[in-house]
Amino acid sequence: MAELRREPITRMWVVITTDNPKGPSDYLSYKPPYQRLDETGTCPFCPGNEGMTPKETFSLSCNGGGWSVRVIPNKFPFFRIEGEFDRRPAGMYDVMEAIGAHEIVVEAPEHHQNLATQEHSQIEKILFAYRERMIDLERDPRFQQFLIMKNYPGVFNRHPHSHILAMPVIPRRIDEEILGTLDYYQRKERCLFCDLIKEEISMKKRVVLETAHFLVFSPFASRFPFETWIIPKIHSPDFHHIQEEAMEDLSVVIQSLFIRYSKLLDDPPYSLTFHTSPIQSQFHRPEYHWHIEIRLRIGLREGFEWGTGFFVNPTPPEDATAYLRGIE
Amino acid sequence: MAELRREPITRMWVVITTDNPKGPSDYLSYKPPYQRLDETGTCPFCPGNEGMTPKETFSLSCNGGGWSVRVIPNKFPFFRIEGEFDRRPAGMYDVMEAIGAHEIVVEAPEHHQNLATQEHSQIEKILFAYRERMIDLERDPRFQQFLIMKNYPGVFNRHPHSHILAMPVIPRRIDEEILGTLDYYQRKERCLFCDLIKEEISMKKRVVLETAHFLVFSPFASRFPFETWIIPKIHSPDFHHIQEEAMEDLSVVIQSLFIRYSKLLDDPPYSLTFHTSPIQSQFHRPEYHWHIEIRLRIGLREGFEWGTGFFVNPTPPEDATAYLRGIE
Repeated sequence: MAELRREPITRMWVVITTDNPKGPSDYLSYKPPYQRLDETGTCPFCPGNEGMTPKETFSLSCNGGGWSVRVIPNKFPFFRIEGEFDRRPAGMYDVMEAIGAHEIVVEAPEHHQNLATQEHSQIEKILFAYRERMIDLERDPRFQQFLIMKNYPGVFNRHPHSHILAMPVIPRRIDEEILGTLDYYQRKERCLFCDLIKEEISMKKRVVLETAHFLVFSPFASRFPFETWIIPKIHSPDFHHIQEEAMEDLSVVIQSLFIRYSKLLDDPPYSLTFHTSPIQSQFHRPEYHWHIEIRLRIGLREGFEWGTGFFVNPTPPEDATAYLRGIE
Repeated sequence: MAELRREPITRMWVVITTDNPKGPSDYLSYKPPYQRLDETGTCPFCPGNEGMTPKETFSLSCNGGGWSVRVIPNKFPFFRIEGEFDRRPAGMYDVMEAIGAHEIVVEAPEHHQNLATQEHSQIEKILFAYRERMIDLERDPRFQQFLIMKNYPGVFNRHPHSHILAMPVIPRRIDEEILGTLDYYQRKERCLFCDLIKEEISMKKRVVLETAHFLVFSPFASRFPFETWIIPKIHSPDFHHIQEEAMEDLSVVIQSLFIRYSKLLDDPPYSLTFHTSPIQSQFHRPEYHWHIEIRLRIGLREGFEWGTGFFVNPTPPEDATAYLRGIE
């Protein structure tokens, strides 16, 4: 099992793996370039190897037979679906069992694909899979928050995939965003994100892309070079309530953005995270506005975050926007 | 110049470099292994090359002539010492000039040294240099916060060095720690960090090292594998008010800890950050408790932080402590 432990000063929850804990020798062999699953043997995410993974929770079939997108429980989950929370003190600290869901979305049958090379219709299927799994997992009253995250390239396996987490706690940054949103709402009776969207559209210089449903922009205080956010122009707290038409639009937007990144920065590594409202009526925040945040893992990263939540970014977002707009 | 921009949702300040901004091509060449200053030519931090750096703000001389520790303004600072804040709106956003100080502490004349190979008397000199510079910089009423940080190995230059920043704003995590400390103080009329120290000493299993003045422990909710904190056992908000005797003790503690890290994890890369109270009477927090946080840059880091302040750590701090205690 894994434990959720609360950091007593800033009250942040951290997952600590307690079974198969890693010792010093595990880190020596992880010095990059580390070996990936698919380089050492057969890829468990490729068609024909479905038996190597747990049974799927969802899949979409192909016209020509087989599947086009497949969702499976993670074999090495941060959160386990079975069990009780067992919230308890540990001396002066707080701890609970890491109950939750951790699923993997296999984004394509092909081993070598990414968001810049895929058809947007395939990206739409991935979004559809996220939505369907979230609608299903939301019925479990133990979960407070969804996290969808994609690391590119995959750390253990380059086969295109992403993670869906259903968590029993709300992560720090989502919590902070909610506090900021509520504070603004109390003063203005307007959504802070909606105001940001209007501001960015009128100022233009940080808008990378605008479609009927979405805005892609470089945030004013970008923490990372070429950071972008994808945000729905119509207020909505929850990604998983997205309509079909907006989902199609979003798939085109994602494809276009990642083609730009790929051309501009030579297929850069990135993380993509969905920020969406907590779920269950008691945690849900109608004032929140869901969006996707993309951070590229380029440059001398160690220099940028000073270990105290203090970021330095040598690429002004207005410059990043101009570059991203100038390439298609 | 650089700008400090406030992220409007969570109200975090970010430094955005506006002169010599970096474009896409700068990041292509930065793909590791990037070239370091000292590999492309003469090291500006080595004795004999003092003319390549700005004039020193502090130095300690050697018995045999020359210097043993040298502090110089950073040639490429995040903050500039001259100018006005010029706090102003930018549309709905907040921005100000990045006024501050950014100095480099050259930690030894020798190009190849580190905290595991240095004499503790040399480490004491580095600490002494931090303290003296902070006492001097504190007289400038524009500065609210000190940040001392060391990246090992250095990103641009492997010559042992660290950074001193005097900032006009308080970084996010320090702010959060202060809020947590004040909240606890209001309920208990005790320092949260002092209580943590008592708890850790009585529980033992996360104590790496204890001396007359300091405790080294693995935090209960360690975000990073083998994360440790070095904390003074007697309450003090400010590192730069440290007494000579404690400074000597601290140098021995640092040496011992980094020898352990080096042996256990084969000279791992790390970041070391001093967390100390804001300065100036209106920002200073007597309830705060200064300490040093060390995070190793080992393992598959991208997998650990989910882009939302949510951390996963596969090495329980109790295990990390046992390993670190078992080696000397």
